[in-house]
Parts: sequence; structure tokens; C-alpha cells
Amino acid sequence: MKNLLVAQSGGPTAAINSTLAGVIEKATENNKVDKVYGSLNGIDGVIEETFIDLTQLGESKEKLYLLERTPAAFLGSCRHKLKDYTAEEKLYIDIIEILKKYNIGYFIYIGGNDSMDTVYKLSTYCRINNISDIKFMGAPKTIDNDLAQTDHCPGFGSAAKYIATTVSEIICDSRVYNCPSVTIIEIMGRNTGWLTAASSLARLNNNLGPQLIYLCEKSFDTEKFTSDVKKALEKNITVVIAVSEGLKDANGNYLGESFQSGKKDAFGHKYLAGVGKYLEQIATNNIGCKVRSVELNVMQRCASHIASSIDLQESKNLGRLAVHAALEGKSGEMTSIKRKSNIPYRVEYRTVKIEKVANIEKTVPLEWITPDGNDIVNEMVEYLQPLIQGEVSIPYKKGIPETLFIKKGMIEKA
Amino acid sequence: MKNLLVAQSGGPTAAINSTLAGVIEKATENNKVDKVYGSLNGIDGVIEETFIDLTQLGESKEKLYLLERTPAAFLGSCRHKLKDYTAEEKLYIDIIEILKKYNIGYFIYIGGNDSMDTVYKLSTYCRINNISDIKFMGAPKTIDNDLAQTDHCPGFGSAAKYIATTVSEIICDSRVYNCPSVTIIEIMGRNTGWLTAASSLARLNNNLGPQLIYLCEKSFDTEKFTSDVKKALEKNITVVIAVSEGLKDANGNYLGESFQSGKKDAFGHKYLAGVGKYLEQIATNNIGCKVRSVELNVMQRCASHIASSIDLQESKNLGRLAVHAALEGKSGEMTSIKRKSNIPYRVEYRTVKIEKVANIEKTVPLEWITPDGNDIVNEMVEYLQPLIQGEVSIPYKKGIPETLFIKKGMIEKA
Repeated sequence: MKNLLVAQSGGPTAAINSTLAGVIEKATENNKVDKVYGSLNGIDGVIEETFIDLTQLGESKEKLYLLERTPAAFLGSCRHKLKDYTAEEKLYIDIIEILKKYNIGYFIYIGGNDSMDTVYKLSTYCRINNISDIKFMGAPKTIDNDLAQTDHCPGFGSAAKYIATTVSEIICDSRVYNCPSVTIIEIMGRNTGWLTAASSLARLNNNLGPQLIYLCEKSFDTEKFTSDVKKALEKNITVVIAVSEGLKDANGNYLGESFQSGKKDAFGHKYLAGVGKYLEQIATNNIGCKVRSVELNVMQRCASHIASSIDLQESKNLGRLAVHAALEGKSGEMTSIKRKSNIPYRVEYRTVKIEKVANIEKTVPLEWITPDGNDIVNEMVEYLQPLIQGEVSIPYKKGIPETLFIKKGMIEKA
Repeated sequence: MKNLLVAQSGGPTAAINSTLAGVIEKATENNKVDKVYGSLNGIDGVIEETFIDLTQLGESKEKLYLLERTPAAFLGSCRHKLKDYTAEEKLYIDIIEILKKYNIGYFIYIGGNDSMDTVYKLSTYCRINNISDIKFMGAPKTIDNDLAQTDHCPGFGSAAKYIATTVSEIICDSRVYNCPSVTIIEIMGRNTGWLTAASSLARLNNNLGPQLIYLCEKSFDTEKFTSDVKKALEKNITVVIAVSEGLKDANGNYLGESFQSGKKDAFGHKYLAGVGKYLEQIATNNIGCKVRSVELNVMQRCASHIASSIDLQESKNLGRLAVHAALEGKSGEMTSIKRKSNIPYRVEYRTVKIEKVANIEKTVPLEWITPDGNDIVNEMVEYLQPLIQGEVSIPYKKGIPETLFIKKGMIEKA
């Protein structure tokens, strides 16, 4: 009987530990797997042999429950992209040797684009070298929702729910004074506007905003922006605007960057402010009412206290399926979601060839952005809405959500 | 039978509408009050006679329930501080005339320092001029927790719960990579560090941070800061630091300000970044590991989806007591909380003379800060902990918290 190894990679999310819980649960309840190991800090942990035994954790329903609700990457993460095996074959040989040493028959890698590239490279290397007793499966994860071959990505729904709720609360906050004001909310997404589009769901609450939404898929014109905001202020005393951090001008330069380029601080460092602060300046200068900017920052990816129930369920299912597929002998594939219908919301789970996922970035279709470029169309709302449904019961202890974590190699809860 | 007028003033919080709900509920269930009016945008709404009839709202349990859970100021707010009556007696005469025109016998003002100053001035003016048939009562509100004569302030507990939870989640997020890093979290509080101190409650979860806490009550030394961070990095791969936005240097200048003073952007505006960005620069320059800063911004005052149950209950009780006291004939007082014990947590409600509250700012006692100035003592934790206890059931609709709001003078829910 073989052992199973699981690892996490890329940016943290509120749902990646739910996928991990799914992997551990499925591997533990199955009599085809002996031990379940977790590699600390992704593929780096494999190279350094920093493994942790998760078999006991898989037998504790209470701990799995906590793990599902713990934000960020329980096993730690890395940003290590393997070079092609022709460039560093020694490393590939080392990795395979370590996996064999621990009798690993199944390696599940939970992550985004780069992580799927790792699964692709390792599985391809093994295929070429006739190593057939280690199966490599990917499970998707990214708040950016930019993976190909899946309707949407685990972690995105929870981030979208945080964004929709928070934007809705900021709208309430922005309306208290009886004077014109503009609030600019900067949302994550360097190259894709999926998360920024999720701000539109705040309208499901009170339909008081956001009035303008700018995604990074369309080039941004500051003059058009100024005119958009002025028009919105004619109809609304308070205008709330959602913008992608990755907004670019017509030449493809990041807005924040062009703002930064000319300015250095006392230490010679570049100005650190992003697109929100940049547009705050533009609006302050050209419009003249009260303007402020808010950056949702890392909270949008780690606010597990307001995770989407649908998201956590799907994330877990994709983890379970990755184990199931590996046990069935699949390798070099990623688990994925296919949407069957919006209303009622129905999906099916499947696996897809990893080479169709690795290194590909799925952006928002341009037809889902209004021709004016300052809003999204209803089809996008219909796509987004099911993903934020349902609330997760959070275990509070002393007034704070309880989590599961690793401290000095030991699994603890508090 | 007289009518009752209620208004809200100052910065929004997650609990001020719970106080409003308490006022409306108590006034409606009481047969001594005829109509309940709300003034839009605080005292400005009185001057402009923009009143809304809240009597029907008071009869709907469902709407009161939603109101309690709606963030920011339902009736709108203002930042209008009345001058002394000797300087603008005409305005005082106008206000009293308007109150008489609407047959107002009780005026309840929910707010912070400045709002209590308004209650003080109006009640004093009436006393001096023998106008005894209008009673003025204040109900406290401020996330800053800086009001005198009350153990703590409504709104503070919910902001503290948001901060403790969010800091705890950011700590999980900050630990995923296996490399040294520093995360600086900027928390509201220009002159008082109560909210920043609440970050200490994140330790109740996993005791992994924050490692350093700097309140604005103690002067801040950047060299000491650098040495503190270096020391913390010797023991922890990831260091999370909570700082008050109002940190000042030994000369009493705001840190952010001194950073800004020399720098202007392309438009000649001052650098907008706050103390978090400033310290991010200091740390990047002097320590050299990965450094980032996070500003909790307005989310800390409007995140009603994670309100403290204790806070909302107390806020409501203080609103109810304000009405009760006014009906009993009290005027020129504020409702307040006196703590009886920490464990079990017990309080009693009372009223205090408003002149002892108006314009006074209650800062953190220096003995609650460690001699080193980079943490708080356990007594502070014991004070804070009861205030974030209990979770509020939030009504979700389509995946987003439902709220009650006024649109074009009409009360709507969605």
C-alpha cells in the first residue's frame, strides 16, 4: 500500500484548507492509502523533506472541521516554479527519489497556475522516464479565478462574498454625511478583473452602489474616468467606485506604476501607493469634493469568517476528487468544475488535462464589460451570484474564530 | 402628549443603529410618547427641518431587528459643533422654535464628544431660559472608546471584534511563506490607542501574534522600533505589528505627517499615506526582509457582519435608557456603562452629567502599556476581552447581509 503526499502552493485563500481537508478525509477513509503526509511550503518541502504526518488529523472530525475554516495555507506555501527538466534534471531525480523513499504513490498539489505547471512537469517527467507508480494530481485554488478549464476557482467565491459584503458596508458608511463624496475601492487582480466584478453583488443588498466598476481587462482613460465620476455625482450624492489594482492605460502600463515612477521617497524608494491612491489624487484634483480610497488588501483573501458556504463545499469536493482520480490511476490532471445551470445552480466535477491549465490565465470576457467600460453586464452577475451563496458556521472561542495551525511542527488548535 | 426626536452624529459605527433601535423601541412601547421623529444628518436636520416619522418603524419587530444590524448611521450624521449661545443665539432660538413646532418634548442625541457638547449647550440654554418642557439626553457612541464617564463606548466592542478577528486572519496569511517577513497593521485612533490595543485579542486565537503593539499614548522612537522588530525577527519568522494611526514622535508630531511634509505628488498635494506606509518604509530600509503594511480603514467601523453581540445589546440598552431618563424628566445627561466585574462580566447602566463628558477625551492609562512601550499589559486584555464576546445572527439575503436604509425619504429594506 502506498502513501499519499499533499502540498499547497501560491497565494493563500480562505478555501485552500477546505480542499486540503477534502484530500486528507478522502485519503484517510480509503483503505488504499497507508499514510497521509503533508509537505510544508509546497514543492520546497518535498525537496527539503519537511513532511508532517496528517494521518491522525484525518481521523479527527473536529480537526478537519476546524481545518476547513482556517484561512491561508495550513501547510505553508511557496512560489517555486520548477525549471524544465532539461535545465535541472538533478532536481527532478532528487524529488522522485524522495517520493520513493517515503513510498509516495500519490502526490496532490493544491494551487494556481504555477502549481499546475509543477504538476505538469513532474507528471511529464515521470511519463517520459516510465515511472508509473507515482500519480500527480492538481487541485485548483486561486482567489483570482483565472484558471482555465474550470468554470470558477476554489477561493474565489469566498473572496467575492467578502468583497460584496464589505463594499455593501462601505456604501452604508459613505452615505452618512450630507455632502458629495467619492469613495474608491481598490480590489485585487493584476491581470484579471473577476474580483473587482464581484463588487457588483453589493447591489443585491441595497442597490445604492457601486456606481462605477472598472476592470483591468479594458484600458483605462483618466479623462473618461473623471467625466464618468462627474456624471455619477449628478445623480448620487455619494459615488462608490470599484477598481482593479491592475488597471492599465492605453499603452498597457499599470496606472499605479506611472504614478510611482516619477516619485521617490526620502530613502530613494518608489512610492508604494497603488491605483486607489492614484485615482484618489485624480478625483481630488479634478472633481474637488471629498474623496477617499480604501484598499481591501489581504483581507479579501483571508477573511474566512465570512467564507462562502458553496465555495468551501466545492473546494472540499475538488480535493476529494483529486485523491479519487489519483487512486484510479490518473496522473497529470487537475480537478475542475463544470457549471450545468445558474438557476438552480448545478455543477458537475471532472478532471482535465493539466497542460491545458498550466501557465494559462483566464481573463473576464470583454462582452461581460459594458461598452462604456465602467460597469459589467447582467450575464456576469448571473455567473457570480451563485458563488457567494450560503454562510459557514464559524467556531468562535473567546470571541475570535478558532483555527488549526502548525507550531514548531506540531498541529495545534486555538 | 409630547413627541420624541432622535438624531445621530459623528463618525459611523456598527452599533449606533442598535442604539437608535433602542430609542425607537422604548419610545414606541411607551404610552407617554406620541410620535417618534428622526432628524436626518444630526442637528443639521433639526435646523433644516428634515424629519422622518419613525413611529411605524417602531411597531415593526422585523425592521427594528434589521436596523440593529445595519452599519453606519441610518439617519445620517453631521460634524456640526454649535458655537456658544452668546455667539449665535439666533440659531438656538430657531432650534427651540422648531422643536416646539413639532411638539418635541424629548430630544435624544446619539454621538461622541462633539455631540455631547451639543446636548450640553442646548440643555444649558434651555435651563438658563427657563424652557423646561424639552428634555435633552445624550446616548454615547464611538469606536474610539474615548468618552469620559463610561466604562466603554457603544461601537467600540464591534470594532474591537473586527480588529481582533482580522488581525488573527492576517497572521495566518502572513505565515504561509518560509521567509522572514514583517506585516504592519495600521489601526484607527488619532489620539487614543484603544482600538490598536484590541489587536492583542488576536492572541486569544493562536498566540502567534501580534508580536509588537504601539499605541499613540506613548511617543514613538523609530530607532527603538527598528531594534524591536529586529529582536522579534530573531524569535519569529513572521512578525506582525499593530500601530495606531496617530503615533507621534518625541516632539508630538504625527509620524505620518513628518513623512508627508517633505513630499508632494505631481499635483502638489501632500503624500496621502499614513503611518503604516511610513513604517513600511522604515522597516524596508533598515531591516531588509519582506515588509508590507495593511490599513484596516473604514472596515473597522462598519463591519456589522461581525459585530459583537455584547456591544449591540449594550448599545440598545443605552438608547432605551436615554428615553427612560428623558421621560423621567432628566435633561443634560448621558447614559453610561459602569463595569461591576470582569469575570463574570457584569455592568450596570446609569446616567451622568453631560458637562463631565463633553469635549473630554479618555486616553489609555499609561500603566496599561508596557514600560518598553511596545505592548500592553494583561489588565488591558482583561478589560477588552468581555467587549467582543458573542456573535450576532446576521440576516443574509442572496448571500449578502440585509440592511435597512433610507432612500429619497422612504425607509426600505434589502
